[in-house]
Amino acid sequence: MSGGRLFIVGLGPGPAEWMTPEASAALAEASDVVGYGPYVDRIPERAGLTKHASDNRVEVDRARRALELAEAGRSVAVVSGGDPGVFAMAAAVFEAMEAGPTGWRELDIRVLPGVSAMQAAAARLGAPLGHDFCAISLSDNLKPWTVIERRLRAAADGDFVIAFYNPASKARPGQIHEAFGLLRSLKNGSTPVAFARAVGRPDERIVLTTLAEADPGLADMSTLVLVGSSETRFLERPGDERPWLYTPRTYGAGR
Amino acid sequence: MSGGRLFIVGLGPGPAEWMTPEASAALAEASDVVGYGPYVDRIPERAGLTKHASDNRVEVDRARRALELAEAGRSVAVVSGGDPGVFAMAAAVFEAMEAGPTGWRELDIRVLPGVSAMQAAAARLGAPLGHDFCAISLSDNLKPWTVIERRLRAAADGDFVIAFYNPASKARPGQIHEAFGLLRSLKNGSTPVAFARAVGRPDERIVLTTLAEADPGLADMSTLVLVGSSETRFLERPGDERPWLYTPRTYGAGR
Repeated sequence: MSGGRLFIVGLGPGPAEWMTPEASAALAEASDVVGYGPYVDRIPERAGLTKHASDNRVEVDRARRALELAEAGRSVAVVSGGDPGVFAMAAAVFEAMEAGPTGWRELDIRVLPGVSAMQAAAARLGAPLGHDFCAISLSDNLKPWTVIERRLRAAADGDFVIAFYNPASKARPGQIHEAFGLLRSLKNGSTPVAFARAVGRPDERIVLTTLAEADPGLADMSTLVLVGSSETRFLERPGDERPWLYTPRTYGAGR
Repeated sequence: MSGGRLFIVGLGPGPAEWMTPEASAALAEASDVVGYGPYVDRIPERAGLTKHASDNRVEVDRARRALELAEAGRSVAVVSGGDPGVFAMAAAVFEAMEAGPTGWRELDIRVLPGVSAMQAAAARLGAPLGHDFCAISLSDNLKPWTVIERRLRAAADGDFVIAFYNPASKARPGQIHEAFGLLRSLKNGSTPVAFARAVGRPDERIVLTTLAEADPGLADMSTLVLVGSSETRFLERPGDERPWLYTPRTYGAGR
């Protein structure tokens, strides 16, 4: 062993005020930063830091590269937006480790949690995740649509609030439409829905609507989509302020 | 309107290195801190800061008090451990607001997200939340057991990873036993299970086991319980190091 180490770091949803001090400290000590280009771009340049930016959808290649660098004695930070443990790089690193040389399992590895996109969206909207919820990635790059459909049905059966990650991309614009089509057959049309795009960033955009009225085309790669439970509700505010959206902790009290 | 404001602040799971700079800044500016005693105790004393600590299980009273203080022109921070939007004070504040005077809806209110307990636990364990998951509170103070049972069945049907909040307390030691009993009838006994107690605090304790072997009695109020999906797995490490626990992003590849 060579003294290398690998930190899997969550940068949070965008603004520095949402990145933990632990993540900042790890980035300040790293010799190498590895990640998807836009996340690596968020790390300030400094002497002694080498950046390894890669394209999207090559997570395991990127993870392997990071493990190799750590094995060679470097102090490596693999960066993800949000929380690296939620639909992000942490799982990719352990996949690469499982498939790789046994020596990689001896490396000094730490996962540093962060605020995830659904939490930033929820904070901006009110408290939609205030009660039982589930998080589903709509990408079918890595799982068949039948699995996504099974989970959508279960989420509706369980009356969970649903947070959708990766709702759409240029390569697969259709899933969110299919998902909404299925949910409309299973849940009340008046169920609150929110499209929360780029929360905390300059191009933030929030759209509140209902399941019946929602245009799934509003979702892109930077959008977190929330679909309420039967309890999730809008709380109107005076004037032209956007209503709050929240899910009470009590179930069934209003019915 | 009097210029008061109310920030609903997430302190993170415990250590200062997991609290966001945004939360720290809000606490530095507050005139009043309102919350459950152990969380309020985490805020350093300083001139000009009044602390309002209350007992557990009086969330809506506490929320009402915070809204009254903000209405009176104070700069109020309502504090929760973890993320205030996840089974914590944010929903309680909006409940109090919905039931309270209309004027409360005009107040300057912001929710400041934080790292939640399941994320700290997941980071420590590896990447168990790397794929679709759900979060369920086992407290039946506020919802009937039939709702919890319905959600447990749905979580098993959907093969979600499950994060249990509030798995047990002195007043209700039994739910986690009932939940495990039900899950054992629905899921494979070899499903990985983790009990992650007080992660990041001096009394942190991690137990890895399986659904068949798990002792639900290990769970207390400070424990986050994770139950895997059919894909969640242990990744053995050399020597006596605890195995990593993770859920791959790919579904069904190994079967």
